[in-house]
Amino acid sequence: MSSTRDIDSLIEMMAKLPGLGPRSARRAVLHLIRKRELKLMPLADLMQNVAATARECTRCGNVGSAEVCDICLAPKRANGMLCVVEDVADLWAMERAGVFKGRYHVLGGNLSALDQVGPEQLRIPHLIARIAEEQITEVILALGTTVDGQTTAHYIADQIENTVRLTSLAQGVPIGGELDYLDEGTITAALNARKEL
Amino acid sequence: MSSTRDIDSLIEMMAKLPGLGPRSARRAVLHLIRKRELKLMPLADLMQNVAATARECTRCGNVGSAEVCDICLAPKRANGMLCVVEDVADLWAMERAGVFKGRYHVLGGNLSALDQVGPEQLRIPHLIARIAEEQITEVILALGTTVDGQTTAHYIADQIENTVRLTSLAQGVPIGGELDYLDEGTITAALNARKEL
Ligand SMILES: [Zn+2]
Ligand SMILES: [Zn+2]
Repeated sequence: MSSTRDIDSLIEMMAKLPGLGPRSARRAVLHLIRKRELKLMPLADLMQNVAATARECTRCGNVGSAEVCDICLAPKRANGMLCVVEDVADLWAMERAGVFKGRYHVLGGNLSALDQVGPEQLRIPHLIARIAEEQITEVILALGTTVDGQTTAHYIADQIENTVRLTSLAQGVPIGGELDYLDEGTITAALNARKEL
Repeated sequence: MSSTRDIDSLIEMMAKLPGLGPRSARRAVLHLIRKRELKLMPLADLMQNVAATARECTRCGNVGSAEVCDICLAPKRANGMLCVVEDVADLWAMERAGVFKGRYHVLGGNLSALDQVGPEQLRIPHLIARIAEEQITEVILALGTTVDGQTTAHYIADQIENTVRLTSLAQGVPIGGELDYLDEGTITAALNARKEL
């Protein structure tokens, strides 16, 4: 490679990001260098800011720049509903649909015997605590329809049944699909047609 | 979106990079935030460094961190051969093949009547100057086989014929293809089988 070591390293790091590869990383870096002042500098500054401030919300697991995230802080969203998702990408997908007005609880994964992920590795004990603390009346399980997602949903249902109304996203979630891939309309339909567990 | 404004802006900027889109940008940014110390911080630092130092080589148009790039500075590469490419991605593709030992001249595009790109918009006058200054004996035109690439090759050939040996990459370059897509083996074969114009 003829480029200097920093440019090479930058391409190498970009190439390892999910969704990129060596070729798209090279094109992205060249594009950024060509538009150094307009694109590369602002992007570098933004990354520094996010690297300095990004953190997990201690309450729900969303990412933001404060100890408690904007959604958890908004009084309007304390409507007694809690939507349980696997990860932050799923929370973002729900927010893009714009139809859910309550709060979230990000598990940080699914239960998995194979990967040795038990309830303690996820935010499940914390979920149970929140239900009491925040006067939750309905928990919506918005988990994937994969085997691990369904195992996780059943485990949570066993823990909290009879304490709250317990629902799951119903219509529209394709078998084996992941929430983050769904369009807004499908998510809206699934939420509106949610059913009792 | 529930994330803070900086995270949103970062996703938006990443989504505009060639080869990415909103979904892959979201996944990349979440991945980076999850590995804040291991990935996001080093990547942000690297971008700052490249943003501060990256520049075009004044001699050949390659990108690097000095006024004249490593290839132009290497005495070994002053072998009288000059390889003319459309852009830096093509230069990198040639270097990955590792078979060319001379120097490069990056045009910065192709002649195009449609886009009103004339010889003065490219590094063509500078190419003609370099041939005399650097005692060039052979110019290899490694331009794409698109209409604009071939127009550019013919224009350059008209300008410099009878002053140097003039060749072009021959075997292996697919019609309508771009150099940057080719594997190392194809580039090596094309260079070895180069033919007189
Ligand atoms: Zn939160
Ligand atoms: Zn150079």
